[in-house]
Amino acid sequence: MKKADIGLVGLAVMGENLVMNMESKGFTVAVYNRTTEKVKAFVEGRAAGKNIIGCYSIEELVSNLEKPRKVFMMVKAGQAVDQLIEQLLPLLEEGDILIDGGNSHFPDTIRRTEYVESKGLLYVGCGVSGGEEGALKGPSMMPGGSVAAWPFVKPIFQGVCAKVEDGAACCDWVGENGAGHFVKMVHNGIEYGDMQLICEAYQLMRDGLGMSPEEMHEVLTAWNETELDSYLIEITRDILGYKDENGETTVNYILDTAGQKGTGKWTAVAALDEGVPLTLIGEAVFSRCLSAMKSERVNAAKVFPKSIPAFEGDKAAFIECIRKALYASKIISYAQGYTLMRTAAKTYGWNLNYGGIALMWRGGCIIRSVFLGKIKEAYDKNPALENLLLDDYFAETIKTLVDAWREVVAYAVKIGVPMPAFSSALNYFDGYTTECLPANLLQAQRDYFGAHTYERIDQPRGKFFHTNWTGHGGNTSAGTYNA
Amino acid sequence: MKKADIGLVGLAVMGENLVMNMESKGFTVAVYNRTTEKVKAFVEGRAAGKNIIGCYSIEELVSNLEKPRKVFMMVKAGQAVDQLIEQLLPLLEEGDILIDGGNSHFPDTIRRTEYVESKGLLYVGCGVSGGEEGALKGPSMMPGGSVAAWPFVKPIFQGVCAKVEDGAACCDWVGENGAGHFVKMVHNGIEYGDMQLICEAYQLMRDGLGMSPEEMHEVLTAWNETELDSYLIEITRDILGYKDENGETTVNYILDTAGQKGTGKWTAVAALDEGVPLTLIGEAVFSRCLSAMKSERVNAAKVFPKSIPAFEGDKAAFIECIRKALYASKIISYAQGYTLMRTAAKTYGWNLNYGGIALMWRGGCIIRSVFLGKIKEAYDKNPALENLLLDDYFAETIKTLVDAWREVVAYAVKIGVPMPAFSSALNYFDGYTTECLPANLLQAQRDYFGAHTYERIDQPRGKFFHTNWTGHGGNTSAGTYNA
Repeated sequence: MKKADIGLVGLAVMGENLVMNMESKGFTVAVYNRTTEKVKAFVEGRAAGKNIIGCYSIEELVSNLEKPRKVFMMVKAGQAVDQLIEQLLPLLEEGDILIDGGNSHFPDTIRRTEYVESKGLLYVGCGVSGGEEGALKGPSMMPGGSVAAWPFVKPIFQGVCAKVEDGAACCDWVGENGAGHFVKMVHNGIEYGDMQLICEAYQLMRDGLGMSPEEMHEVLTAWNETELDSYLIEITRDILGYKDENGETTVNYILDTAGQKGTGKWTAVAALDEGVPLTLIGEAVFSRCLSAMKSERVNAAKVFPKSIPAFEGDKAAFIECIRKALYASKIISYAQGYTLMRTAAKTYGWNLNYGGIALMWRGGCIIRSVFLGKIKEAYDKNPALENLLLDDYFAETIKTLVDAWREVVAYAVKIGVPMPAFSSALNYFDGYTTECLPANLLQAQRDYFGAHTYERIDQPRGKFFHTNWTGHGGNTSAGTYNA
Repeated sequence: MKKADIGLVGLAVMGENLVMNMESKGFTVAVYNRTTEKVKAFVEGRAAGKNIIGCYSIEELVSNLEKPRKVFMMVKAGQAVDQLIEQLLPLLEEGDILIDGGNSHFPDTIRRTEYVESKGLLYVGCGVSGGEEGALKGPSMMPGGSVAAWPFVKPIFQGVCAKVEDGAACCDWVGENGAGHFVKMVHNGIEYGDMQLICEAYQLMRDGLGMSPEEMHEVLTAWNETELDSYLIEITRDILGYKDENGETTVNYILDTAGQKGTGKWTAVAALDEGVPLTLIGEAVFSRCLSAMKSERVNAAKVFPKSIPAFEGDKAAFIECIRKALYASKIISYAQGYTLMRTAAKTYGWNLNYGGIALMWRGGCIIRSVFLGKIKEAYDKNPALENLLLDDYFAETIKTLVDAWREVVAYAVKIGVPMPAFSSALNYFDGYTTECLPANLLQAQRDYFGAHTYERIDQPRGKFFHTNWTGHGGNTSAGTYNA
């Protein structure tokens, strides 16, 4: 019997769908699952009559693979991956390729790449986005790890992944060791941000303008024909228009406590580690936390009763301002996310292709949008672009949006509708475009109480000064007090 | 010769000052430093004629201590602490007490407490705040660790620490293992927030109202007579009034790029780990990062030139609004910080005394203020207070501030002066006091693309629903896709 082009371990929905996808593109796939009943059910069910080889042990899986063997692991991120690697290593040989397609944290992938390479094998940590449907019909795939593995997995990955209109594949080599999972993590953080922005626009329309779901459904339908054209706007449009069998709008009955699985948090922590202001995603993560404090909020709403005034003015014009503010905030979020990737690339020695990343996100995944095409253009034009805001297209675009953006945020501030992500985005824009921030005072404070020293604007960088602010105390600079 | 009440290792400025402080309160102190020249210089210099015993080896230090021996370690946080513990352990015996007075990260202190206790000794991780001057004249001290150690170290700690007007000591037992260092870390995070808030008020007065340092010096002088009365307002007042020998205002010549040593970042990461919205401190940390991107900001300021309009209106009245907004934002920052402590206390099993913590911060440390007395009152009245905003005093206070707060933030938004901390505080207030956040839509989105399910407002909590939003696709709920 023909050996398989690739093996896959882990037949949950994502794993099964990926197998079906690979097979549909002409690849033979060997499959294994720890609970072997799943293998049986799969090969007798969806996989029946397909080029899919059911295996009932790891050994059987390995023996069914063409060399160099490629094993795609779709198991729960964490210890399960390490355990599976340990099971596979003794059965594989030099040049074989282990692929982790789960949502692993990038430091784990850095560690595992080094470990597996030390055994003479190759390792690929591949971010896979698009959910169950993406896995089946074409996910966005972000592979990194041992670059020598790329030529062997490229035909499969680029065969099964999503494609954009011109046929370009939403999968390309990202970079060394953990780069693929890092980029996938940033993708998830950006997804948190995009979702939060849409939610804030929704809340302002609902609570500030008193709009019904039907009216907002119409607005989102129109927005999806503009620069905001994206999967998340699309599904929000559908959600706002969705009624249950009794004719009730379902979204009105959903409890406002958001869950999270931690990848947004990882992104915020990575930003703190890298010293990159990722304020919008930070607010998006914290907003989910705040939403979960439901009973406290119910109490607090009684202590501080709100009365939001009726909107006076041109409603349609203000809705267009909200759209512009949403677009501007979204540009900031991506600018911040790209700055995080640029900074991490320096830290970890990755040579990232920023236009390529935009292309990978352009289709197949949750944040897919027309907008990402503009980002690709910006980085194709200038791969060393310091910040997305400095690209001509985005700079000119922001200038057309900024007045509306200010108006929307100021209005929300006045009436008491929380818009933390819109606000943090605008504050970042105003800070980033300010030549002189008040950190001169902050450095003076640190020098005052901790003798931390400061640099001067009339002296070269790297020269440090201390002032004896009180006239007493010493002139020593402190090394011990941390602030 | 009389043996020493306590030994101290690490004669940098903080260590030396603590020794001088202890000795001045009647304690005999044995001292040791790895570079023994420092011991010699100290005992022949500042320590000459005092009850201070210079020791030239760890063994000599230990042999000079009364039992149970108490060794105060003032060495650089990190590996140096672990190494010193390893050196000391073989020389000590059951019941002896190791104290870490450095800025250790609380997970390290949790680990070390367990380790040292496993050897039959006691461990204290003690946050010490107040800088060099505090160490000498009376720091704020936050001890946690092995509770059995407290009776032995209490007389020394409460002897040397800062006192408030009524004589109460700014030092009390915080809690088990890493609790002291955790509380110290939150203190540092709050310090980041307080400093950032003052800086934003300064920037709005400078750039929005066109005020001179002299004018702002007058304003801060007045503010220090109000609820804002605090060390940081005091030193800012002094800084704004400080002129160099040429009559130039020094703060005008300081470069606006802030440094940081990471404890603010730790606080933000802890908040993300605990799922607590700590948005203001998060923005304060990110603002330092943004300030450090000086050359990028200079470029961006050219691409997006600002023209801030002249202020029209009653300047004095608006300055009072800024003061109110600053006070309101500060209340939010402490409310968020206390929520973090309450949540971490559950996670780590600490029984924290929240009023006691406010008292410890009330004097001696960088964030010392009259305001902390109000927090102490709130927690003394109700130790189980869910959120500072729900205390009567703070609720009524916020109500008197909120209009001014909105006016200030909205004005900054309109003219383009960044106020990320003020804004995030107001957005938190508006979110916390909102019964229905837009997370119902967010849960619908997550259910749409990932079948993550949701709860309903017309059904009991803990019952989960999934909608087949598209009419196709399955009714399974996803376990693998993380968002």
